[in-house]
Amino acid sequence: MMNPVSLSPIVSRMADEIKDRSLDAPLVIGIHTGGAWVAEQLHRELCIPTKLGTLDISFYRDDFSRVGLNPKVKSSDLPEGIEDRNIILVDDVLHTGRTIRAALNEIFSYGRPSSVTLAVALERPGRELPIEAAVVGKSIMPSGNEQARVSLKDGQLSYQLVVPDNGEATH
Amino acid sequence: MMNPVSLSPIVSRMADEIKDRSLDAPLVIGIHTGGAWVAEQLHRELCIPTKLGTLDISFYRDDFSRVGLNPKVKSSDLPEGIEDRNIILVDDVLHTGRTIRAALNEIFSYGRPSSVTLAVALERPGRELPIEAAVVGKSIMPSGNEQARVSLKDGQLSYQLVVPDNGEATH
Repeated sequence: MMNPVSLSPIVSRMADEIKDRSLDAPLVIGIHTGGAWVAEQLHRELCIPTKLGTLDISFYRDDFSRVGLNPKVKSSDLPEGIEDRNIILVDDVLHTGRTIRAALNEIFSYGRPSSVTLAVALERPGRELPIEAAVVGKSIMPSGNEQARVSLKDGQLSYQLVVPDNGEATH
Repeated sequence: MMNPVSLSPIVSRMADEIKDRSLDAPLVIGIHTGGAWVAEQLHRELCIPTKLGTLDISFYRDDFSRVGLNPKVKSSDLPEGIEDRNIILVDDVLHTGRTIRAALNEIFSYGRPSSVTLAVALERPGRELPIEAAVVGKSIMPSGNEQARVSLKDGQLSYQLVVPDNGEATH
């Protein structure tokens, strides 16, 4: 297994890239768990006064489909007044795009934003939906069943490629 | 105003690019009106045996939002058995991404596809959602209020950049 790679400097560069976009009064929403960690760092470095929002999307297997897992919004703590605002939606890894579609639907159920800019720390091949991030920290190419796992230790974000027990890709 | 530019050879190249993706038994769904025309040509050139599906998404202005127009699915004629299938979703112009989000939600209301590959004849800047096409015929850069308008005459697809009366961008 590879050694952990530090993500904090990568996320700092993402913050610079987001600043360059000059979004008007953006709100930041992170997807639980890894995306929320990345969002916390972005929220801090972008000095955004409004509260950081979070979305928790879990995956479940339904009985009638042979295709992978279904994303489902478990809980959300979104900022007030999403209507007409510019949202920065943050996740740790962009893979199939199904998590992001679920997150967009949850956001739109609260109000219609002016725009949603997707920022991800890592992106990998394997898109199953036409979803792409505007801001990408790093593109990775996991092999076989490998997945990127983001962790937070002593305030430092890092990632590792690991082979999970269940072998399921869920992002 | 610019002269009409032929789209048919561009759509033929898109068909080649889609063939290279070797999608297993894909279903084609075109977004009414222009996207359905592009989809018809792709459907023919890809020799797909299943019926071409269509989605009609109209735009309306709601009373409580200051942001542009809302997409709404007006009608749809989707192929049977979307569950677990590979979908090729076709539109004429990719602009804000809002049409595509509405189309994805309509498709998922019929069943959960294995994948959705977005193919657009034209793409232009102005994305408001993290939506991107996997197959793009041509990237265009309209200026000011210009919009790309796709038309079908004597079996030939073409597009023109025009300034619409209402000045609204809707794609």
